[in-house]
Amino acid sequence: MINKYCIIMAGGIGSRFWPLSKNNYPKQFLDILGTGKSFIRSTFERFLPIVPAENFLVVTNAAYKNTVLEHIPELKPDQVLCEPMRRNTAPCIAYACYRILSQHQNALIAVTPADHLVTNEIEFHKIIKTGFDFVSKENNQEALLTIGIQPSRPETGYGYIELHEGDNPLGTVSAIQGFKEKPNLERAKEFLAAGNYLWNSGIFIWSLQGILKAYHKFLPEMAEIFDGGKQQFGTDQEQKFIDSHFALCENISIDYGIMERAEKRYTIPAEFGWSDIGTWGSLFTHAGKDNNNNACKGKTYVHNTKNCIVNVEDGVEAIVEGLDGYLVAYRDHSLLVCQLSNEQHIKEWVEEL
Amino acid sequence: MINKYCIIMAGGIGSRFWPLSKNNYPKQFLDILGTGKSFIRSTFERFLPIVPAENFLVVTNAAYKNTVLEHIPELKPDQVLCEPMRRNTAPCIAYACYRILSQHQNALIAVTPADHLVTNEIEFHKIIKTGFDFVSKENNQEALLTIGIQPSRPETGYGYIELHEGDNPLGTVSAIQGFKEKPNLERAKEFLAAGNYLWNSGIFIWSLQGILKAYHKFLPEMAEIFDGGKQQFGTDQEQKFIDSHFALCENISIDYGIMERAEKRYTIPAEFGWSDIGTWGSLFTHAGKDNNNNACKGKTYVHNTKNCIVNVEDGVEAIVEGLDGYLVAYRDHSLLVCQLSNEQHIKEWVEEL
Repeated sequence: MINKYCIIMAGGIGSRFWPLSKNNYPKQFLDILGTGKSFIRSTFERFLPIVPAENFLVVTNAAYKNTVLEHIPELKPDQVLCEPMRRNTAPCIAYACYRILSQHQNALIAVTPADHLVTNEIEFHKIIKTGFDFVSKENNQEALLTIGIQPSRPETGYGYIELHEGDNPLGTVSAIQGFKEKPNLERAKEFLAAGNYLWNSGIFIWSLQGILKAYHKFLPEMAEIFDGGKQQFGTDQEQKFIDSHFALCENISIDYGIMERAEKRYTIPAEFGWSDIGTWGSLFTHAGKDNNNNACKGKTYVHNTKNCIVNVEDGVEAIVEGLDGYLVAYRDHSLLVCQLSNEQHIKEWVEEL
Repeated sequence: MINKYCIIMAGGIGSRFWPLSKNNYPKQFLDILGTGKSFIRSTFERFLPIVPAENFLVVTNAAYKNTVLEHIPELKPDQVLCEPMRRNTAPCIAYACYRILSQHQNALIAVTPADHLVTNEIEFHKIIKTGFDFVSKENNQEALLTIGIQPSRPETGYGYIELHEGDNPLGTVSAIQGFKEKPNLERAKEFLAAGNYLWNSGIFIWSLQGILKAYHKFLPEMAEIFDGGKQQFGTDQEQKFIDSHFALCENISIDYGIMERAEKRYTIPAEFGWSDIGTWGSLFTHAGKDNNNNACKGKTYVHNTKNCIVNVEDGVEAIVEGLDGYLVAYRDHSLLVCQLSNEQHIKEWVEEL
């Protein structure tokens, strides 16, 4: 019995990609880059060569359960875990780990966000396998491993992992010195120049026993809540237990709650074309462009236009003329035209609207 | 029995207002200005104080018959005349006049496009009544009258009516010296400075007998075609006759075919807030504006934006940021973003798309 599991965290609401992503259709279900597959589908397929389909768990909101099953029909309905409310990543991951505990005490687990981009899957598979190998060793049972991304620019939108100074080769497990919050530009430039900082990808690998120990040590109240449901997980009483106990969990991320406090924490410096595509700007960076540096998706005709994103849903046609550096997006009865450089204000405008 | 009739010409396809107007929904059915009424509805209501509802005829394409009846439910279906194909205004008006002939030999007729704007209806009613009075006089039976609009700018998009030099007061019938095609800017400025030129509104008033005589004199072949159907007009054989004979008619406008050749032709210089709203620019001129000179229609939020048209259909919401002098329009799955100054290219772009 293969003991490798994958937890896909798919609870995001992704308001930054309005109007493409909205509460009723968040980013993980979109094919923003025009690859032909949604982010969540790509995430599933990316792990499928390593983890058998029956060992995936998707954690999401009940409202999205059917959508998840439409995007990943290989899953059985009970592989989609429904959070009654958003409680950040620590409770989300705990829920999935306790479900796994009901099935396989010696599981090895990869945890991944549902809505990130990876362009080099071959390299990705090497890294994930290296991670699984590492945490499967008997003396590494308590190791908590997060994948670190070799930075290519002084990005201020990501958290950073600090390594010990010295040689930290790509693809090799290194100990983590510490975590750094999203820096300002000056700090980000220092991180890049120093050479021993990585972007924190939010992809984790650990053994089930290792992460359960960490929950008991660093988030003991949360562990106690879930321990109280041990008899319910994997049974038809599970959802009832979750619905009545999940809200009791602290709203805290796995990074703050466990990784920053843990002792045996490791990373693998990696380069596999990763991006969280967290902004229109990062989408623009990773999308295919026409000769005038426009990233167009959908039936579009652009004229006298450069450095723009034009993104319209299927069934809609668009003509765009005379723009430079703009975002033009239409989905689900909502239209946005704005300067790409002002995308950080989208949320405010949506509220004004 | 009231002998005043109104013919509304509603055969246009209005490709200049793409994406608002398309073949399946031309301009006359739109409420481009956000008045709460379509152009054709406003046209009907504008004449209703003068012409009883049962004396209206709308000439359109068969494809639009139901749409006309939705916009003007006061009409009976047989008041909507269906052209089998577009053949310009002379055959269109002839068809309606021969229908009227089957009902009322001594009718007085106003002819109007379906898709023009009039802002001062009180003044409009005075002018139309003056016109009806004029053509109702026994010695004016052959008079053909067209309403002329006092020009306010050197417009190059309209044809002009030349009056005899001298005093041609507003609201009073004057003889027409000649017609001028759409001028270039230099000529338009000369017309404006000369003072004896009016815009040709395309609104006509005449007696039925007067216009029938003119058809026989200046378009005798067309008159002969329609004379051949005299027994069919007003009967259930009418559509069959039209479907088999309309295509035989010359494709010619009433202006070229009759008005430019007629002897007893008159105009009334008028000022009643008229525009043909033939371009997005003229729509912009006549639409209400916000403090930043934006003409917005629909659920919109504009920010850091001025001198723009933002026009989205009901049920769609739009955010527009950082534009000056642009047109943003969405309707029926089609989006257009372009500089207002380049609107003359819209048709080309639609073909490229």
